[in-house]
Amino acid sequence: MTTPAVREARPEDSASILHFINELAVYEKLAHEVETSEAMIEATLFGPDAKAFCLICEIDDEAVGFAIYFYNYSTWLGKYGIYLEDLYVPPEHRGKGAGKALLIHIASIAIQNNCGRFEWSVLDWNTPSIEFYKALGAREMSDWHMYRVDGEALQKLADKEYKDKRIKGYKDIRI
Amino acid sequence: MTTPAVREARPEDSASILHFINELAVYEKLAHEVETSEAMIEATLFGPDAKAFCLICEIDDEAVGFAIYFYNYSTWLGKYGIYLEDLYVPPEHRGKGAGKALLIHIASIAIQNNCGRFEWSVLDWNTPSIEFYKALGAREMSDWHMYRVDGEALQKLADKEYKDKRIKGYKDIRI
Repeated sequence: MTTPAVREARPEDSASILHFINELAVYEKLAHEVETSEAMIEATLFGPDAKAFCLICEIDDEAVGFAIYFYNYSTWLGKYGIYLEDLYVPPEHRGKGAGKALLIHIASIAIQNNCGRFEWSVLDWNTPSIEFYKALGAREMSDWHMYRVDGEALQKLADKEYKDKRIKGYKDIRI
Repeated sequence: MTTPAVREARPEDSASILHFINELAVYEKLAHEVETSEAMIEATLFGPDAKAFCLICEIDDEAVGFAIYFYNYSTWLGKYGIYLEDLYVPPEHRGKGAGKALLIHIASIAIQNNCGRFEWSVLDWNTPSIEFYKALGAREMSDWHMYRVDGEALQKLADKEYKDKRIKGYKDIRI
C-alpha cells in the first residue's frame, strides 16, 4: 500500500468534497443540516475571496479523505491559528493513516505560518475520534462553551442596528 | 449620553486594543496567557494579510469597548460565518449599550456578507455574559467540545510529517 499523500483540493474535486461532506453528516447524525451543493463548494472554497481551504488525502491516486480549515486568531497570543472545521475518512479507508496524515499536514501548515494553535471541535459522544486526538497531543478546552446565533435570530439581531439607534437610543440596554 | 457608535479599528488604536485585551484577560482569570504586544497587534490586525478584524465602540469619542472577529466556514451550509474571538467593555462603561452595539454591528456585517452563522465561546462560569447572549437570541452548542494542540505538542505533530513518511510509512496508524 502506498503512503497517504496530502494535496490542496482543486475546483474539480467539488463533487468528491460534497460526497465526503454528506457522508460525514450522516456519521455525525446531522444529515438534515446539510444545505451545501457542488456549486456552493466551488464558489466558497475556490473563489477569489476564499478564506477556507480544503485538503485531499490520496492513496494510489484515489481520494480517501478530506479536511477543511481556516485561520482563526488568538488575541492572547497576538497570532493567527488554524481551526479544522471538518476531517473525514470513509469507513472503508480507515486504518491506512489518512486522518493522521491530514492532521499532521495541517500542523505543518500551522508551524510554517507562525500559528500559535491548531484547534477543532468534536461531538461529545464521538469517543474513537476523541481518543485519536488525545493520542496526537490535543487537549480538551472544557471550560469554554460555544454559542451560536443563526437563521431568523441572526437576521433579527442584525435588524436591531437601525431600530435601536433610531428609536430607543440604547437607553434600556444592560452590558 | 450619546448613543454608542461602532467603527473599524485603525493602527493607531493598537495601544487601546492592548489595554482592553489585558483587562479582559484579568476578568477571565487568564492574564498569565497574554503574550501579545502593541507591535504584534498592529502587524496581525492591520497588516496586508490581516484575516481578523477589530471594531471599536465609542461614546462621545471615547473608546468604551472593542471586538475582534474573523470569518469561519460551515461545510454543512456551504457558507462563511463570523466568529467573535473577543468582546470587552470595561466595568466603568457597562450599562451604556456598548456590548450590545458591537454584537448587533457584527450581526449586520454577517448578514451583509451572506454569512450563515455568528458564533463565539464563553467561559462556563461567566453567567452574566451567558444570560446577555441568550437574551440576544444565541443558543449553546453544548454537544460540541473544543480540542487544541499548541506549543511543543503542535511542533511535535508537525514534525511527524517528515518522520512518519520516511521511516514508518504510516503502517501502524489507526483512523
